[in-house]
Amino acid sequence: MARILLSGGTVVNATGAAPADVLVDGETIAALLAPGSDLVDPATCDRVVDATDKLVVPGGVDAHTHMELPVGDLAASDTFETGTTAAVWGGTTTIIDFANQYVGDTVPGCIDEWHGKAEGNCVIDYGFHLAVGDVNEETLKHLERVVDEGITSYKLFMAYPGRLYSDDAQILRTMQVASRTGAMTMMHAENGIAIDVLAAQAVEKGLVDPVQHGLTRPKALEAEATFRAIKLAEVARSPLYIVHLSADAALDQIVEARDRGAPVFAETCPQYLYLSLEEHLSRPGAEGAAYVCSPPLRSRDDGNHDNLWRGLRTDDLSVVATDHCPFCLEDQKAPALGDFRRIPNGLGSVEHRLDLLHQGVVTGEIGLPRWVELCSTTPARLFGLYPRKGVIAPGADADLVVYDPSARQTLGAATHHMNLDHSAYEGVEVTGRVETVLSRGSVVLDERRFTGRAGHGCFLRRGLAELLR
Amino acid sequence: MARILLSGGTVVNATGAAPADVLVDGETIAALLAPGSDLVDPATCDRVVDATDKLVVPGGVDAHTHMELPVGDLAASDTFETGTTAAVWGGTTTIIDFANQYVGDTVPGCIDEWHGKAEGNCVIDYGFHLAVGDVNEETLKHLERVVDEGITSYKLFMAYPGRLYSDDAQILRTMQVASRTGAMTMMHAENGIAIDVLAAQAVEKGLVDPVQHGLTRPKALEAEATFRAIKLAEVARSPLYIVHLSADAALDQIVEARDRGAPVFAETCPQYLYLSLEEHLSRPGAEGAAYVCSPPLRSRDDGNHDNLWRGLRTDDLSVVATDHCPFCLEDQKAPALGDFRRIPNGLGSVEHRLDLLHQGVVTGEIGLPRWVELCSTTPARLFGLYPRKGVIAPGADADLVVYDPSARQTLGAATHHMNLDHSAYEGVEVTGRVETVLSRGSVVLDERRFTGRAGHGCFLRRGLAELLR
Amino acid sequence: MARILLSGGTVVNATGAAPADVLVDGETIAALLAPGSDLVDPATCDRVVDATDKLVVPGGVDAHTHMELPVGDLAASDTFETGTTAAVWGGTTTIIDFANQYVGDTVPGCIDEWHGKAEGNCVIDYGFHLAVGDVNEETLKHLERVVDEGITSYKLFMAYPGRLYSDDAQILRTMQVASRTGAMTMMHAENGIAIDVLAAQAVEKGLVDPVQHGLTRPKALEAEATFRAIKLAEVARSPLYIVHLSADAALDQIVEARDRGAPVFAETCPQYLYLSLEEHLSRPGAEGAAYVCSPPLRSRDDGNHDNLWRGLRTDDLSVVATDHCPFCLEDQKAPALGDFRRIPNGLGSVEHRLDLLHQGVVTGEIGLPRWVELCSTTPARLFGLYPRKGVIAPGADADLVVYDPSARQTLGAATHHMNLDHSAYEGVEVTGRVETVLSRGSVVLDERRFTGRAGHGCFLRRGLAELLR
Amino acid sequence: MARILLSGGTVVNATGAAPADVLVDGETIAALLAPGSDLVDPATCDRVVDATDKLVVPGGVDAHTHMELPVGDLAASDTFETGTTAAVWGGTTTIIDFANQYVGDTVPGCIDEWHGKAEGNCVIDYGFHLAVGDVNEETLKHLERVVDEGITSYKLFMAYPGRLYSDDAQILRTMQVASRTGAMTMMHAENGIAIDVLAAQAVEKGLVDPVQHGLTRPKALEAEATFRAIKLAEVARSPLYIVHLSADAALDQIVEARDRGAPVFAETCPQYLYLSLEEHLSRPGAEGAAYVCSPPLRSRDDGNHDNLWRGLRTDDLSVVATDHCPFCLEDQKAPALGDFRRIPNGLGSVEHRLDLLHQGVVTGEIGLPRWVELCSTTPARLFGLYPRKGVIAPGADADLVVYDPSARQTLGAATHHMNLDHSAYEGVEVTGRVETVLSRGSVVLDERRFTGRAGHGCFLRRGLAELLR
Repeated sequence: MARILLSGGTVVNATGAAPADVLVDGETIAALLAPGSDLVDPATCDRVVDATDKLVVPGGVDAHTHMELPVGDLAASDTFETGTTAAVWGGTTTIIDFANQYVGDTVPGCIDEWHGKAEGNCVIDYGFHLAVGDVNEETLKHLERVVDEGITSYKLFMAYPGRLYSDDAQILRTMQVASRTGAMTMMHAENGIAIDVLAAQAVEKGLVDPVQHGLTRPKALEAEATFRAIKLAEVARSPLYIVHLSADAALDQIVEARDRGAPVFAETCPQYLYLSLEEHLSRPGAEGAAYVCSPPLRSRDDGNHDNLWRGLRTDDLSVVATDHCPFCLEDQKAPALGDFRRIPNGLGSVEHRLDLLHQGVVTGEIGLPRWVELCSTTPARLFGLYPRKGVIAPGADADLVVYDPSARQTLGAATHHMNLDHSAYEGVEVTGRVETVLSRGSVVLDERRFTGRAGHGCFLRRGLAELLR
Repeated sequence: MARILLSGGTVVNATGAAPADVLVDGETIAALLAPGSDLVDPATCDRVVDATDKLVVPGGVDAHTHMELPVGDLAASDTFETGTTAAVWGGTTTIIDFANQYVGDTVPGCIDEWHGKAEGNCVIDYGFHLAVGDVNEETLKHLERVVDEGITSYKLFMAYPGRLYSDDAQILRTMQVASRTGAMTMMHAENGIAIDVLAAQAVEKGLVDPVQHGLTRPKALEAEATFRAIKLAEVARSPLYIVHLSADAALDQIVEARDRGAPVFAETCPQYLYLSLEEHLSRPGAEGAAYVCSPPLRSRDDGNHDNLWRGLRTDDLSVVATDHCPFCLEDQKAPALGDFRRIPNGLGSVEHRLDLLHQGVVTGEIGLPRWVELCSTTPARLFGLYPRKGVIAPGADADLVVYDPSARQTLGAATHHMNLDHSAYEGVEVTGRVETVLSRGSVVLDERRFTGRAGHGCFLRRGLAELLR
Repeated sequence: MARILLSGGTVVNATGAAPADVLVDGETIAALLAPGSDLVDPATCDRVVDATDKLVVPGGVDAHTHMELPVGDLAASDTFETGTTAAVWGGTTTIIDFANQYVGDTVPGCIDEWHGKAEGNCVIDYGFHLAVGDVNEETLKHLERVVDEGITSYKLFMAYPGRLYSDDAQILRTMQVASRTGAMTMMHAENGIAIDVLAAQAVEKGLVDPVQHGLTRPKALEAEATFRAIKLAEVARSPLYIVHLSADAALDQIVEARDRGAPVFAETCPQYLYLSLEEHLSRPGAEGAAYVCSPPLRSRDDGNHDNLWRGLRTDDLSVVATDHCPFCLEDQKAPALGDFRRIPNGLGSVEHRLDLLHQGVVTGEIGLPRWVELCSTTPARLFGLYPRKGVIAPGADADLVVYDPSARQTLGAATHHMNLDHSAYEGVEVTGRVETVLSRGSVVLDERRFTGRAGHGCFLRRGLAELLR
Repeated sequence: MARILLSGGTVVNATGAAPADVLVDGETIAALLAPGSDLVDPATCDRVVDATDKLVVPGGVDAHTHMELPVGDLAASDTFETGTTAAVWGGTTTIIDFANQYVGDTVPGCIDEWHGKAEGNCVIDYGFHLAVGDVNEETLKHLERVVDEGITSYKLFMAYPGRLYSDDAQILRTMQVASRTGAMTMMHAENGIAIDVLAAQAVEKGLVDPVQHGLTRPKALEAEATFRAIKLAEVARSPLYIVHLSADAALDQIVEARDRGAPVFAETCPQYLYLSLEEHLSRPGAEGAAYVCSPPLRSRDDGNHDNLWRGLRTDDLSVVATDHCPFCLEDQKAPALGDFRRIPNGLGSVEHRLDLLHQGVVTGEIGLPRWVELCSTTPARLFGLYPRKGVIAPGADADLVVYDPSARQTLGAATHHMNLDHSAYEGVEVTGRVETVLSRGSVVLDERRFTGRAGHGCFLRRGLAELLR
């Protein structure tokens, strides 16, 4: 069991930053030491990482990924191995992926399938949410039990009728189970029933370009579904977590609920903070298809992006995750160009989350502690991984990132490590770079040399959410 | 053609009250005259009604009635004849009834059926809304046309799955038609899908009493549906009218929409202002069943009733209608006592609306002009009957009520004229009483002697809504 | 006593428009007649005004004018004679002017002074508000009494320290008197104490141009004062009327209060709907000085103007008045150009209010009945003149305007009738024009020929406010 | 320099709780160690504190105390020595007291005076806010400089005209200085000008009992002042901290500002969470006088107390401080009984803050980390003491509390350590008790034996606020 000392850095936790050394012993953090402490003789350590002028931050927790997600005949292009490798390069040391139950699947079968895909293939630790696509009596019984297997969150879909959609009865009944088990209900909050009407009408009129994907999913229908989810959760007396919130009109509903003290939380994603309908999704042909994801990129014109940043500051948006769901342009997205509804939905960004959010620190939108809180601490707390993950403290897993806040880098398909033939951020220059990463005490990125291995990552049996107050 | 002079009274319109004489010539109002005017020689009139110390108000417009409504094997107990007779006794001279399309019915068939029931049987004028229970391609085509037949409002149901319920696609598509035709979309805003889950769970636990009807329809689910309807209307760019709003939590959604200037309107009913879950619906057995209606009577404890009165003052509630849908206790409601879900929903109050709201004038909740506005003017404007109905002005239909604001009366089944074996207001004493009523120039109530006749009432081909600003 | 028939027009009242003839007998309206009525033989009339294709609307009630207002060594440039003459040309038949008590003045003295200025000089009827500039024990005693003299509204100033300003103790005590007497408290809601700090700081930095007048009166300080006035009125249990609201941030406070059902009302003025800081107040030198008024013209960029129009539609803004307070450019405004604080505050627009607001009808912002409600009916109701003024009904004063909704005209100093050497609306083309005006039964404008005379107008002893619900 | 090991406890920080040992070396924390770590040999420590089954929490930071505060002829009854001794007993290791500038005082003179009172007399560390009672040119110049002396917050009073009151010009100018220096503006937000009117009117009517103190300070006037402070801070572009918020109506203003992302913060006090107007302030005579403080205790009936607890959960209330300002009943409060305005304002509770708030943990209102955040971390961050105070981390001051969460105790004058002849919490039983306290590495309470000494406490030169995001 290795003993590693990270010395000379500034340790950033969710409530503040201060110089400290971190001693890792085996898989966990053994001690935090005042700078210059003589408690630990470097000579007794297997490795001393010099973190001078660097930040030492808790490894990122990406609470929303879709590795190898089957979508029709296709699958998201990152495997658990390529995806977690890319995650490491970006300072993320935990992912929570969605085990997706489709119609006809049993819950245990679906979980087994996901274990099968992930086990032995992950470079970093991973957990599963259960994406529930077929709520029925049997499913509900299984949901009671999966909490004991460490799967403590159920995701439901108000979109995608016929595939993953749950009606309000199914939602309410699942939330009632969650209320009993203590699980978190997660919601894809878009009114898919109404959206499908608009999308079909657009296609009927011959409007088939990728930008139509955005135009047929108006913000009002995300706001509607968000409010509906909040009210159903209120009836069921269960907490609620809205995934990938993109519309400020939906954020307004979160604000109202949180002002009342309701246990309602929301996540947004980097794409909703940096990319837009008019700059990206409106591009012609495959270039636009690259940016098809749901909910869609929103217009920047009416202040939507600024409003989301404000939500990050006010804690009405509590988490930034990626919704990493990459599809290659050439053979996955482009073939569907004749009908925007057939373009596989999803962007790949598991590698860039910490770097992208760090730009918010650089520009003064958020502070360093908030950066850590959004990317690591709060997802760990909300998904039952705290204090094992999400914090630099004795006893916590030694998931650590040495981050150079001054380095500059340019993002793009040529240099990224995701299995993806393009980048949503091609050519974007950012300040800040991950230098070294530890996962449960093992160095998996060593001064930007990848030293991880598939199979190091363990399945995380998660506990119940801390509701933060 | 008779010439009738109503002299000496105080004419009340929606913006104010002032002494004036009203000259009726044939079916319409020929003139409004300053008090004591010598323009009209009483001797030239067929009839002079002395309105000294009385109010002269526009005949009431009840925008929400269900005469002879078939519900399963039953039908609402008032026919168009008994129901409009009772209306006259209460000062209402126009009803807008719902032609109810059930699954499988065609729109024209349904309209024909309602014409068949009403024609020749009404004492006062009547119009129809279309209650749309089966939205499909054919229905949508018919909806485009019914506006030309003077049916300019479509009601949809977010409750009653399997019977009248429309899903959000059906709602959106109907609203899109309304957006093109200028029709008003009316909404029964309760999340029936979720309610049915709660109701079934209550019954499973053996909770079958009438009060469960209220407990399984929480305010949150009315608020949810109200917000959803508002957002769908926003997407469709159509105006919206929420029928029988009962929950202050739903009113909050109306307030928010109206503050933004959205063309959203709401109606409440006397039962939600005067009756309550704990005082009425909680009564044992048939006594409670008498008060089963949807949405349910609400608890008074948390200020719900006061909040609705406030909404009437702020114009966030724009209309008071009755949702008159009477079922007899003995042979219609009582037989269903073993399962609250089977009790026919509805209360009878077409006769008492003006008197009950007048209590709000007596207690200072609202002023006289607002009383007229809520009961006559606004429903006439919103449903395309203005300025033919809803105002005392030259050229308007001579639908006039001479009202004694000081008379006292006691409500109850023994004295009312509805075909109903009980009264929701049994023993309630009120101040104010209808004395004389004219319908299109004919005296139908003459100093509390009924002088109307079935068949006098005409079908009203309504125009489009005035959206009030 | 003349008998005049206005025939063939469309009568517009606050709740609707419909064809009707209006019979005037002496000073009041004798009858409203259905079109084509034979009740009145035209031959028996002294005059028949053909209103075919025209609107007949209640004479405008301008609730906010400052004729001959002394400001330092100057006085507003319109006398009661020139000002009311101009009003007639614009369809206004009632003004309520402010009798301004300055420090040291007694209330009776001030009222006598204003009677002295107005009596015998007005072409149309007039009332007085009392602008209270020196709240002390004696003043408070007088305020109790002026209600009996028909002066039923007290205006206070949160701006202009040292001249008209009242502190919160003076405001609260005046509101307590109003609570007892039933008078309306009117408020100039800007935090003048804070504004004077900003203004002095600007001048210290050499920023003296007219635009600084706007920049040193930020919207936040109007919002603040508005909220403060609302809360003080809540403590005193008195109604409140905010004059010349200009900032949407202040409107937000009104919305919040009115949503709660508080008796709070607000007025805006045409200048805040049509003119802006960047287009008008920012002009160099005297051109900018022309647009100095308080509160200042606001920026259009952030949607302020659209938000005020929305307020007019939602009735959160209940009245449009002019705050007519004209100062000539050459010898009154220009001489003060070296220091924006010395430029006399005020714009002249008593002549243009109905025409300007009619543009809102033309562009679809408001409907015809709302136009009448904002310009006549609501000010009459709120200031105790209804139903004598503000409505076309039998018994009301025959203050009538025949309005051609299709005529086009161009506004400007060369053609206006105000005693003012420039026009804030120079060169603006509008649709709609006043053709003929009656004041208490006398024709004062006859197909655009002025036929009024100073001295016809009477002092109006006003009653208490109708609070509208 | 002593070396002390706290072993076996659960360390609670603002983001979570986990078992860890804490090594203190001299005045600061040298290391946090995983439980059972062998890094530190206990034998090398001067002292090992067994914290098994106990919590180890950061010493409390009470951001609002008034030791020896002169009020007229009186002074608050706790000296810096007795007050900080009591603080230790309650687990508070830092106070920030107010150096009060009265009219005529210079800022440096006032600061010198406070240093004179505190220096050598404090058992724990202390800082000063400056309470600015005489804003003038000289004062403003001094305010620019005091930040360099470690006094980084200015408190202003919207209450107490003639004594401490600042008008809006004084407030704005002080906030402008704060905007330049980075200091925090703190506000006593009650409209004292209006309150004094109500208070004088009550006394005129012979209403002089202590309860009148509450009745003449309505919630609307706290809400008003809070909004005004927010708007003035918005104009000055300075952050704002509302002290001792007591009214939910004021909290509503905080919520609105924070939802917009404004740098606005609020503190409440235990008395507003636990005591009420009807239960405490309404008591007759001296018993009621004991509870006179400003703002006053509020009625519990309308949900005020629940709403404040909700604010603590939603972080709209960010800090709990005491506003400790004790006056003895017999010789300080009772003599003023004939006129509630003369009763010295204030309650003593510096000793009970952590225990009282811990009841919120016991009853589930808040979680353990939130308890620490409210009582220590956030006040430290907002007042420039973090990460020296407010957190258990290497390098931080060793201000540590060993807290027994299960012990039971009864509060009361007989057992408390404040210099106060009564207790606002007499007889109240609480769960949880401070066992051992370290201040900068020195044990000042040792298993409930006081071992501190006056003079150990140092003056804290504070830095600028972290604005938390």
